Amino acid sequence: MKSNQTKNLLIAPNPSDPALSQSVVGIDHEGNPVETRIVQERAITLYLNSQEVVTIMTIGDHPELLATGYLLNQNMLSNADSITGIDYDDDLEVVVVRTENSTNFEDKMKKKVRTSGCAQGTVFGDIMENFEAKELSKAAKIKTSWLYALTKEINTTPSLYLEAGAIHGCVLCQEDRPLVYMEDVGRHNAVDKIAGWMFANKIDPANKIFYTTGRLTSEMIIKTVMMGIPILVSRSGFTAAGVELARKSGLTLIGRARGKRFLAMSGEHRIVFDNEVSPDIENEARRKRDT
Amino acid sequence: MKSNQTKNLLIAPNPSDPALSQSVVGIDHEGNPVETRIVQERAITLYLNSQEVVTIMTIGDHPELLATGYLLNQNMLSNADSITGIDYDDDLEVVVVRTENSTNFEDKMKKKVRTSGCAQGTVFGDIMENFEAKELSKAAKIKTSWLYALTKEINTTPSLYLEAGAIHGCVLCQEDRPLVYMEDVGRHNAVDKIAGWMFANKIDPANKIFYTTGRLTSEMIIKTVMMGIPILVSRSGFTAAGVELARKSGLTLIGRARGKRFLAMSGEHRIVFDNEVSPDIENEARRKRDT
Repeated sequence: MKSNQTKNLLIAPNPSDPALSQSVVGIDHEGNPVETRIVQERAITLYLNSQEVVTIMTIGDHPELLATGYLLNQNMLSNADSITGIDYDDDLEVVVVRTENSTNFEDKMKKKVRTSGCAQGTVFGDIMENFEAKELSKAAKIKTSWLYALTKEINTTPSLYLEAGAIHGCVLCQEDRPLVYMEDVGRHNAVDKIAGWMFANKIDPANKIFYTTGRLTSEMIIKTVMMGIPILVSRSGFTAAGVELARKSGLTLIGRARGKRFLAMSGEHRIVFDNEVSPDIENEARRKRDT
Repeated sequence: MKSNQTKNLLIAPNPSDPALSQSVVGIDHEGNPVETRIVQERAITLYLNSQEVVTIMTIGDHPELLATGYLLNQNMLSNADSITGIDYDDDLEVVVVRTENSTNFEDKMKKKVRTSGCAQGTVFGDIMENFEAKELSKAAKIKTSWLYALTKEINTTPSLYLEAGAIHGCVLCQEDRPLVYMEDVGRHNAVDKIAGWMFANKIDPANKIFYTTGRLTSEMIIKTVMMGIPILVSRSGFTAAGVELARKSGLTLIGRARGKRFLAMSGEHRIVFDNEVSPDIENEARRKRDT
């Protein structure tokens, strides 16, 4: 059953990859030595053509997708831009994204926004203009039966979270099927890697559902809307600004999704209540995730 | 008992402050309207003298402490700098920190590091130089009995976390006593507010213990060391880079601290195992925090 679930995913976490987590020895509350697995964190420096953009702390898988997604979500690259090449140097920990036409974003670097939510930090003022212009699919929907199936499948998929903890996860989904499951030390890296994958594979966002383990802060709402995805689901809670932005953009915002329960704060019209969930789904999901 | 605990704190969360959380109405998993409290998130723009530095997403309490702490932790201000005034304009959502001598940090703005962990994002390359030069108190210690008492008191203190969720907390402690408990939508804001408070009150960091609800990423370790605090405790887990930095600086790093259990990954020599905790402390702490 589990191997079937993982097969369904186009990209799944690889908790056994020794590059992503390592064993360290510490002591426990009784002073005894204990060996445990913890996730890696590497500094990868991103260039857009000849311009250094940023150094990103990441677990380090999918550096090319992370680089593309970061530039897209920072509005430094648009879907219209043509990428001619992405070079990743594992020794130098440098990734270079090359575009057909040169891009000038240096003046944007002057306006920085320090954001809530994880990892990200640098969002530029003009992102809000694009946010307000964005239209999300009116036809998209999410059935509660899909939501329960997604939650269950995501929570039982082998992951670095289950293996080592201290990591965030994001999953791109369609109907009741998780497609791409990314993890990272910063939640926004996980989002960016999915954005990079969608760009590389020309994925239509209109019928997708975005799942995150993290809180629904304003930045998370902005990223989801900028990616064109009409439905955002989290097992965590909301912030007031996040709810306000979601309502402004018509995003369907579902939080505190655990077991059978959830809370929708915006775009409720896309939710189809088609399902009486059985108690064992609820119990299993809770048990897997919370222990 | 609870009111005594809160009285002990010099600064405590104020979950009943209407400026910090608000009621919103959504629908639950059965489609019924539900009213719930969620935390605020405001954009406050920070100036150092006449230079715009950053816009910070925050719950908005203690903007002056947040501003000072941000500048200190970003290395834009040092303990030697003399602050002549801090002006906060609630309408404009602007805070201006004025110093005796003008500070030029614009060239630092060119080198940005995107970091893991919450909220922060913009750490500048030269912070690492200061990090490596920093020496932490060798005399400092933490008794396991203090650790259990701190965990219990923090987890039972009324907070926005208990009221509305989706928020991080940091607590500055001394021996078994929590002194200052700050919360924010971004964990790094909570850290910065404590750094600002320590600066304003000329607090000696050498005998302090820093408690956080968030993960022990590299950035969290760097901030704690930069603040001169020798002991860092979290209920969350570690990253590999965080452990490496903690070991390099000799920081005592205690993670996964829940109930009686914890795991120490660095600076174990500061831990004094003086306590057999009673099972009811463990159970109570777990119940309060996890439900």
